[in-house]
Amino acid sequence: MLIATPQSMPFEAALPLQSGASIRGYSLSYETYGTLNADKSNAVLICHALNASHHVAGVYAGQDKSEGWWDNMIGPGKPLDTNRFFVIGVNNLGSCFGSTGPMHVNPDSGQVYGADFPVVTVEDWVNAQARLLDALGIQKLAAVMGGSLGGMQALSWTLQYPERVAHAVVVASAPNLTAENIAFNEVARRAIVTDPDFHGGHFYQHGVIPKRGLRIARMIGHITYLSDDVMNEKFGRKLRDAATRGELQDYLYSTQDVEFQIESYLRYQGDKFAEYFDANTYLLITRALDYFDPARSHGGNLTQALARATCKFLLVSFTTDWRFSPKRSREIVKALLDNKRDVSYAEIDAPHGHDAFLLDDARYMRVVSSYFDSVEKEITA
Amino acid sequence: MLIATPQSMPFEAALPLQSGASIRGYSLSYETYGTLNADKSNAVLICHALNASHHVAGVYAGQDKSEGWWDNMIGPGKPLDTNRFFVIGVNNLGSCFGSTGPMHVNPDSGQVYGADFPVVTVEDWVNAQARLLDALGIQKLAAVMGGSLGGMQALSWTLQYPERVAHAVVVASAPNLTAENIAFNEVARRAIVTDPDFHGGHFYQHGVIPKRGLRIARMIGHITYLSDDVMNEKFGRKLRDAATRGELQDYLYSTQDVEFQIESYLRYQGDKFAEYFDANTYLLITRALDYFDPARSHGGNLTQALARATCKFLLVSFTTDWRFSPKRSREIVKALLDNKRDVSYAEIDAPHGHDAFLLDDARYMRVVSSYFDSVEKEITA
Repeated sequence: MLIATPQSMPFEAALPLQSGASIRGYSLSYETYGTLNADKSNAVLICHALNASHHVAGVYAGQDKSEGWWDNMIGPGKPLDTNRFFVIGVNNLGSCFGSTGPMHVNPDSGQVYGADFPVVTVEDWVNAQARLLDALGIQKLAAVMGGSLGGMQALSWTLQYPERVAHAVVVASAPNLTAENIAFNEVARRAIVTDPDFHGGHFYQHGVIPKRGLRIARMIGHITYLSDDVMNEKFGRKLRDAATRGELQDYLYSTQDVEFQIESYLRYQGDKFAEYFDANTYLLITRALDYFDPARSHGGNLTQALARATCKFLLVSFTTDWRFSPKRSREIVKALLDNKRDVSYAEIDAPHGHDAFLLDDARYMRVVSSYFDSVEKEITA
Repeated sequence: MLIATPQSMPFEAALPLQSGASIRGYSLSYETYGTLNADKSNAVLICHALNASHHVAGVYAGQDKSEGWWDNMIGPGKPLDTNRFFVIGVNNLGSCFGSTGPMHVNPDSGQVYGADFPVVTVEDWVNAQARLLDALGIQKLAAVMGGSLGGMQALSWTLQYPERVAHAVVVASAPNLTAENIAFNEVARRAIVTDPDFHGGHFYQHGVIPKRGLRIARMIGHITYLSDDVMNEKFGRKLRDAATRGELQDYLYSTQDVEFQIESYLRYQGDKFAEYFDANTYLLITRALDYFDPARSHGGNLTQALARATCKFLLVSFTTDWRFSPKRSREIVKALLDNKRDVSYAEIDAPHGHDAFLLDDARYMRVVSSYFDSVEKEITA
C-alpha cells in the first residue's frame, strides 16, 4: 500500500497575479509518489478540481480510510503507475487543505486574509505550480494531468509553459464555462455571501462559519455532478429509509421533513461539506472556474489561443456529463487539430455524469493506462 | 382589450385534504373571461404553475402593463378564444395572490397560518377547483388546461372527475417529478427554511421576510426554466453592462461583484421574486410538485393509473425543456394510448427550455388553436 506524506514548500518572493495584485510569503502543500529518475524526465503533475487537494493517491500512515482522491487512477500498477512515474500532487493557492489560503495570516497586515485573499486564476495556479517544480528541480514534466477544473489547469500549462510539458491529459473539462455553469456557481456564491454568518468574508474573527450557505452551495454542486439518469437509478422517487424498511409507506405531508431519499442524500452531502470546506475558498475556486477562458484574449478564437501548445494531448469526456459535456472537450480537440497537434480523444459512454472522471470505469482506466505506456516509451527511448 | 376583474368565492364547509387534515372557511380568487353559453358547455378551466395566479388573461382597468400570465394564449381571437369559450382562471389554495394561504388567519386558531397551513396536493387543488365550478353552476368543462404544474392539475382532473372533463390540454408537464427535479426543489426549500428570517415559517409576526432564501430559490428555478442553449445565446460569457458599453473591458477580479450578465440577470430575478412571493407558499407549491404521482397507487404503472381518464387529450412538449422533457410527456401519451384514448401530441422544436410554454411560438400557438377549433365543434355539434 502506498503511504503518502504531505510536505510543504515555502515561497518568500512575491508571486504576481493576473489581477495585478501579488501574494508573498506563501506556502504550497504537496505530496509525491514514486521516484524521480536520474534525468528527472518522469515527473507527472496532478492538478485538482474544486474540493480536492494535494492528497491524490495512497493513504496516510495508520489511517486506513484516507485514500487520496484519485487513488483508483494513481499508484503502483495503476493507470498512472507510480512504479514508473514520479507523481506530484499540489494543493492550490487559496484552497483550504494546507496551502496558503483565506484562513491564514496575511504577512503584510498581520491579519487573517478572509475576504481579502487575492482573487486567483487558473493561470496564477499554474505559475505557482511552476515555481514548485523549480524548487523540486524539475524542468520539464512528462505529463500534466487533471479533471474538470484540474483539466483547465493542465490545458493552461500547455499554453503558459509549452516548453515544460511533453503531454497533457485533460479529463472532463472545457475551454471555458457556459452561462449555465456560471449561473450555478453564482447561486452557490450568493448562498454563501448572503448567509448572515459570512460577515463579509471575515467570519473567522466572529467564531462562526457560514454553514447554511456552504450547505446550499454543496447541494447545488452535487445535483450538477450527477446525471439525471444516475440520480433516477440511485434514488428515483424512493421514500426516506423508514418507508423503505416498511415502517411508514405513505407521504408524511411535510414541507420540511425528509420525504425522499434524494433529499436526505443531499442534506447529508451538504452537512458534511460545511464541516470541512472554507467559504472564502469556495468563492475563490468557483471564480477561477468562471474566469478561465484562454480564447478570450484571442477574440474568442480557441484555435488561435491553443496555437501556443506544442505537447501531445489525451482528452477524455463522459457522455452523461452535462456540466462539462463531450461537446466542450470536442471544441478543444478541434482547436488542437486545427493546429495540427497530436491529440487522442476518448468519449466514454458512462452513466455517472461529471462524477465519472473520479470513478472506476474499465474503458476509461484502459485509455489512460495505455496513454501513459506511450508517455513512458518516449521517456525511455 | 380584455379587461379582467378579479373575484373571490368564499367556502365555509371544510375541504378534506389528502394528508388527512382539512381546511374550512377559505376563499378562492378567480377571474372569468368570455361568456358562459346557455347550456354551460363552453367553460375552460386554466390551472396555474408555481408562481402564477388566477390572472390568466387581459389587463386590469387602468393598468396597461398588467397582462395575465397566459395573455398571449388566451383572449379574443387568440388560440384559446374568449369570444367562443368561457375561460376561468383560479388561484390555488396556499398561494399568495388572493386565495387563502399561509399569510391568512386560520379561523380555528385566530392566528395567521404561517407554517401551519396544511400541506396541499395537486389532488386537493383539483377538488377545490371542482367546488368552485359547482358554485359557478358548471357541471362539465369543455376543457381543462395547464402547463408544467398546471398540466399536472389538468391531468389529475381527468382522473378525479373523468365525467366532468371533455378535453385536457397538458403542456410541458410530466406524470411525476424525477429525482433531479425533487433535488432542485429541495435545495430551494432548504435555502428558505435555513434563512434566519424564516423563523420556522412564522416570520410574519416578526415583521421580516426570508428574502435571502427566496432569492436563492428563484435563482435556482430560473436556471432550470431556461435551456443551456438559450442561456448561451442570451448571455453567454458577456461581461456586465459597463463592459458592454466599453467602459471596462477586463475582469474586475472580484468574487462578490457582478462580472457576467448572467449574474445580474439572476440577481435581478431573485430580488424581484423576493419582493412579492411568499416563502411558505413556495414550500407548499414545490411540495405539491414533488408529491404528484398518479401511478404511485398503482405500483408505478402509469397505464393502469390513467385508465380512469375518459376525455380526449392534447399534450405538448418542448425539445429543450430539461425540467419537464418531451420524454416525460411521451410517457403520458403512451399510457393513454395503451388505454386506447384519443390523444394528440405535439413536440415543439423550441430553444427556450421549460419557459417555452409561456412564450410565443407560431407552431405551438397553431397547435393549441386548431385543437380548440375541434373542441368548439363538439360543443356546437
